[in-house]
Amino acid sequence: MGVNAERLLRGVREYAAHELMTEHEAAEPPTRSQLAFHERGLANWWLPEEYGGLGVGLRDSVDAVSELAYADAGSAFTLFVSILGSTLVSLYGSDELKDRTLRKVGASGGFSATLGSELAAGSDLTSMTTTAARGTGGLVIDGEKSFATNAGFAEFLVVIAVSADNPLEHLAIVVPRGTPGVRIVRRWQTLGMPAAGTYQVTFEGCRVPEANALRGPGLVLLEVGLNTTRTLIAACGVGIARRIRDLSLAYARDKRVYGESLLANAVFAAKLGQMEMDIEVMRNQCLAAGAEFDALAADPDGAAELLSRGALRSAVTAKVCCGRLGWRIATIGSEMFGGLGYTDRSPIGRLLRDMRFVSILEGGDDVLRELVYRRFVIPARRRL
Amino acid sequence: MGVNAERLLRGVREYAAHELMTEHEAAEPPTRSQLAFHERGLANWWLPEEYGGLGVGLRDSVDAVSELAYADAGSAFTLFVSILGSTLVSLYGSDELKDRTLRKVGASGGFSATLGSELAAGSDLTSMTTTAARGTGGLVIDGEKSFATNAGFAEFLVVIAVSADNPLEHLAIVVPRGTPGVRIVRRWQTLGMPAAGTYQVTFEGCRVPEANALRGPGLVLLEVGLNTTRTLIAACGVGIARRIRDLSLAYARDKRVYGESLLANAVFAAKLGQMEMDIEVMRNQCLAAGAEFDALAADPDGAAELLSRGALRSAVTAKVCCGRLGWRIATIGSEMFGGLGYTDRSPIGRLLRDMRFVSILEGGDDVLRELVYRRFVIPARRRL
Amino acid sequence: MGVNAERLLRGVREYAAHELMTEHEAAEPPTRSQLAFHERGLANWWLPEEYGGLGVGLRDSVDAVSELAYADAGSAFTLFVSILGSTLVSLYGSDELKDRTLRKVGASGGFSATLGSELAAGSDLTSMTTTAARGTGGLVIDGEKSFATNAGFAEFLVVIAVSADNPLEHLAIVVPRGTPGVRIVRRWQTLGMPAAGTYQVTFEGCRVPEANALRGPGLVLLEVGLNTTRTLIAACGVGIARRIRDLSLAYARDKRVYGESLLANAVFAAKLGQMEMDIEVMRNQCLAAGAEFDALAADPDGAAELLSRGALRSAVTAKVCCGRLGWRIATIGSEMFGGLGYTDRSPIGRLLRDMRFVSILEGGDDVLRELVYRRFVIPARRRL
Amino acid sequence: MGVNAERLLRGVREYAAHELMTEHEAAEPPTRSQLAFHERGLANWWLPEEYGGLGVGLRDSVDAVSELAYADAGSAFTLFVSILGSTLVSLYGSDELKDRTLRKVGASGGFSATLGSELAAGSDLTSMTTTAARGTGGLVIDGEKSFATNAGFAEFLVVIAVSADNPLEHLAIVVPRGTPGVRIVRRWQTLGMPAAGTYQVTFEGCRVPEANALRGPGLVLLEVGLNTTRTLIAACGVGIARRIRDLSLAYARDKRVYGESLLANAVFAAKLGQMEMDIEVMRNQCLAAGAEFDALAADPDGAAELLSRGALRSAVTAKVCCGRLGWRIATIGSEMFGGLGYTDRSPIGRLLRDMRFVSILEGGDDVLRELVYRRFVIPARRRL
Repeated sequence: MGVNAERLLRGVREYAAHELMTEHEAAEPPTRSQLAFHERGLANWWLPEEYGGLGVGLRDSVDAVSELAYADAGSAFTLFVSILGSTLVSLYGSDELKDRTLRKVGASGGFSATLGSELAAGSDLTSMTTTAARGTGGLVIDGEKSFATNAGFAEFLVVIAVSADNPLEHLAIVVPRGTPGVRIVRRWQTLGMPAAGTYQVTFEGCRVPEANALRGPGLVLLEVGLNTTRTLIAACGVGIARRIRDLSLAYARDKRVYGESLLANAVFAAKLGQMEMDIEVMRNQCLAAGAEFDALAADPDGAAELLSRGALRSAVTAKVCCGRLGWRIATIGSEMFGGLGYTDRSPIGRLLRDMRFVSILEGGDDVLRELVYRRFVIPARRRL
Repeated sequence: MGVNAERLLRGVREYAAHELMTEHEAAEPPTRSQLAFHERGLANWWLPEEYGGLGVGLRDSVDAVSELAYADAGSAFTLFVSILGSTLVSLYGSDELKDRTLRKVGASGGFSATLGSELAAGSDLTSMTTTAARGTGGLVIDGEKSFATNAGFAEFLVVIAVSADNPLEHLAIVVPRGTPGVRIVRRWQTLGMPAAGTYQVTFEGCRVPEANALRGPGLVLLEVGLNTTRTLIAACGVGIARRIRDLSLAYARDKRVYGESLLANAVFAAKLGQMEMDIEVMRNQCLAAGAEFDALAADPDGAAELLSRGALRSAVTAKVCCGRLGWRIATIGSEMFGGLGYTDRSPIGRLLRDMRFVSILEGGDDVLRELVYRRFVIPARRRL
Repeated sequence: MGVNAERLLRGVREYAAHELMTEHEAAEPPTRSQLAFHERGLANWWLPEEYGGLGVGLRDSVDAVSELAYADAGSAFTLFVSILGSTLVSLYGSDELKDRTLRKVGASGGFSATLGSELAAGSDLTSMTTTAARGTGGLVIDGEKSFATNAGFAEFLVVIAVSADNPLEHLAIVVPRGTPGVRIVRRWQTLGMPAAGTYQVTFEGCRVPEANALRGPGLVLLEVGLNTTRTLIAACGVGIARRIRDLSLAYARDKRVYGESLLANAVFAAKLGQMEMDIEVMRNQCLAAGAEFDALAADPDGAAELLSRGALRSAVTAKVCCGRLGWRIATIGSEMFGGLGYTDRSPIGRLLRDMRFVSILEGGDDVLRELVYRRFVIPARRRL
Repeated sequence: MGVNAERLLRGVREYAAHELMTEHEAAEPPTRSQLAFHERGLANWWLPEEYGGLGVGLRDSVDAVSELAYADAGSAFTLFVSILGSTLVSLYGSDELKDRTLRKVGASGGFSATLGSELAAGSDLTSMTTTAARGTGGLVIDGEKSFATNAGFAEFLVVIAVSADNPLEHLAIVVPRGTPGVRIVRRWQTLGMPAAGTYQVTFEGCRVPEANALRGPGLVLLEVGLNTTRTLIAACGVGIARRIRDLSLAYARDKRVYGESLLANAVFAAKLGQMEMDIEVMRNQCLAAGAEFDALAADPDGAAELLSRGALRSAVTAKVCCGRLGWRIATIGSEMFGGLGYTDRSPIGRLLRDMRFVSILEGGDDVLRELVYRRFVIPARRRL
């Protein structure tokens, strides 16, 4: 682990302990404690140092995100989801675009958002209806996007749109904050993750320079970028799971069953032993996904190679695996506290609701199973 | 199915459709729609007709509760949980006590609550600390009870307490509404089931006539009574599961995936086919539990026989089985709606939170597995 | 339970204890002990008394089959699978055909086999290639059938064939033992169930009287008949599961872990408690399936009603449910005996292999989920 | 991956394709094809090059073992299980002992076996009864060992025994082939893995030089060594799983369901997509376990550090994880081939039986969960 990765991990631990674990009120993101992340020099840690980040890779981000999510998964999501947009700009934007966008968020600790989902299209992105028309003076975007985390306060949006001229061509376009024609319609109320803000956004004649389009087919660019957030959403699952484990142990320490500490109960031991192993498996899968992405991204031809691959099996697997094992852990955890676990006196209900997002966001398990089948099973040479 | 059972089921269906499905605001129980249940002549349907009920047995209550929970599990719970207390009074109370209590709730459509749980004791009821002291002028109760559903507005409470004289003796005591010394400390905020009110109750020098004690050992009486509510909590799971199934189908009807209705998708079909089979299994187990209880309760020696058995395997199994299968269905359901399923635009998040209660209330799975092992596995003659 | 049902259950228990539990050598079915079933007056217990059976219904057959399978599932299958053919003859055969066939097996304790499966067609029975041609002098059958249990020694076969004239018409035809043109090609070697004989059979110009065709469309007739065997295959799963439970307890009684009997271990208790509940659920589902079939079969219009329904949800669910829960029990069981459980010194390996058949034979879970979806989920009125 | 690791992987692939995939008869191990492994220069690949091996570490052994197990898990086990004994000698034996033993097996391609298990003691190794007495002329071993793979034809055994003087002291002792007093009592018949030979061995007054005792407490030494075999047993699970995946695809390619290839079926796709992800997770966990062990073993103080740790969480987790996911894959696989899957015409039954060993050998899941709880959960600093 490099010096900056260690600095990040240490910084994140202190931040989580002092800022996130102590905040209890739901607030509008970015919350005060989320903004404090930048004050500690940690915001956008994945950006190259030249742009004001720490230059920490995806593999080394896994434990950092796990620590954040241990404290508050919603804040963790707010703080890392910008990696998608900035990774795309970094790999597929012109130098001028990088200068305009990454340097800015690097300096300000600002956020970005990537807008792919649409309500009607769902997981079938090919049927999206947000269009980008090439005209004099640039690209004009029209349409509506759903479930755009951070969009309400982002420095820039990366919008995936279908070409107005060609239904088979998609673009990924950077839209800076304050561009006319962009409107935040509403913030979604979600089952969990109250500290993450997810928005509905409309575009009406929203015009940006043609140079704001990233190089490459929009849907594939999105797939490439999702490797980063899918890996870190999975890492969120690791953090929530670790929190549930520790809550269970704290509860068991004080709980007596038939005169004996619950810690000495064999069924409890079996559950916690299995949890620990599940956490080990989840984390190793995240690390493997991070390492695969880092190796590709570090290669001189990495941007092109990533485009030729799109979604990586390792990243997809990390999300599915952590979603499933994490849900099992949350399920077991939520049954561990008796009636108390069904009340707001125990945080387990909140953690259960938070955990649910790992399986649901950025591709449900059904969609991802089908993707893995098509890409990595049918072509025999790509199988493990 | 008898005439009254049919009348109940028909009545419940109309009630659920007209009162419960249309109410969306959380309100303090008993809510307006819960009170309307009595206006329709359905309240306390399990009471004998002589006491103002419909005299419908536990088996025939299963589908009625399933219909209520289909519409709103919290209201269902509010409307049936009184069965525990009234069953105990009916089987183990003096005629005079029945007259005083059952006739009253029968006429008024009032509620009752049974208070067993204590926060520190948890599932280990033998370590409860609420005491009942025999003195001149009756029994005096002191202590604190947790998770007492309906206690905030019940006509009478059935309180399980340890004898002040003998730590191995427990009593089940009827405490009428308005008895001095009873105080509702708070309503618990719960993960789901917003229309059910669960309370913390303290007793300070609360005095009732000795005749208010039910015949039999208190912990066993509680076990006997729990056969009714465990069976109906399980039936709640059936109702919530049926609702999730129907929501999934309604969603799939309109949802198109790659140009085809989701209804035609084989993975969707497999999930729904399995759900239907799980629902069949859940319901049959509830019916079997209801039938076993009814047969015992109808026997002239049934009250004594029930005391000799305590918890029935069938009722315990119904709750565990429906809790587990129900949770699987809720899990699958909550992944079916894409990102929408994580928002308040879909009721699935609410149903997921409601479903959780089936596994948690009135004995978690660990506790019940251990009980089944001790009672029905170790003694070889009691095994299936 | 009627007198004959009690007699059956008692008889089966004695038979299982004295004949099946003591036989250890694999032998060619019908084995000596299988033949002894008839000597005890138990063979073909489902046949009406007028035909020499005990007239015991499907519901009351569940526990009998469970007892047989407790001792040896392969023999159980041999002894009950004839119910499919005789039920079809009984419901859909002419009086003359019943006389010729049922009376004979009733008197002799003989077996029958029903031949639906073909290797290439698999679960898609509409693509079967065995034909029946109507000609002078009767029906002529040509083709090849797979996985026909009991066919090697059956008094009569019920063959499902497609009409040579109409690919959409199928017939169910009774072929008596010794009919020219029938040839047993081989006995299949199977993963488990060594005492059941499953055969490959060819038909070459096999001619039978037209009166040997049963009334009704062949594929639907097969579906109707499968309700009986699917329910009893499920009951086999109950029996094997009960055996695994008892083996586990016998092992635990003698096994000491860190100075304590395994019986006192909480993880063991939890597993066995869950097993007992699973067995309760499995059995109740079988009983419900048996009761539904019995009620229909007892109705004067039952044969027609059954034809209009085909596969019953209850029977399909029984097989899927018992296959899944049974496999879970077998999996847990096979991990319970340490290294010994992987050797032939423990019967658990054999029971594991036996249990597998419940999920595989007469329709795999995928096929049955799809069937339930199509028949009982899509038509809203047929949902539970 | 180093040159030798690549050579190993390439060599193993050729060997597996030419020797293992083509051999169908069960034979007494070491089989002709197992002996051919040495002819290809691959035997004991983990031994340092100075001792005649390839010096390939545990991480790089994972894919090699996966390839062997893809072809035949029993042979894979035979070929790698010697790693346990030779790793212990290598880390904790005197130079003279290494010379005597490792050089010999390195040159001859011979096998070794490690004998820990005893029938009565089971997983509770502290209650083993095989003793080692220190006397004039060396150590004298008496007792009986079970489930000793390769013991029937090993060049040397590593025997774990309790000191005759001190019931709390255990020794790990090298016993060369041909030492008087060692007797192979029988080969166990096992549920699967027919090409692996597992034996019962007795020791009667078996005398070896004191120098044959390895340095360190015997039970901890065994734990250290098990890190290698547990990781590679897990890798076997990866190989069997990959084989099941490929068999499923080969079957689906030719199988038509309602006129369409099974490959196009969405349920099939979902299953195979999930399998591929499970395989990815399994393999990454094995690689992580191998890497952790390699890093420790390569450290100058590694032998001591390993003794202070004993069982590594990563290795234990690899075995449990691969046993569970592997079993799920085998279960799904065995249901995929319809009735054929229950016969010996499909290899799936054999693969199912082979897969079972992953969960059972070298510590069942219950034992390992408890170990992880005690070592890695209770001490808060060791949690992930």
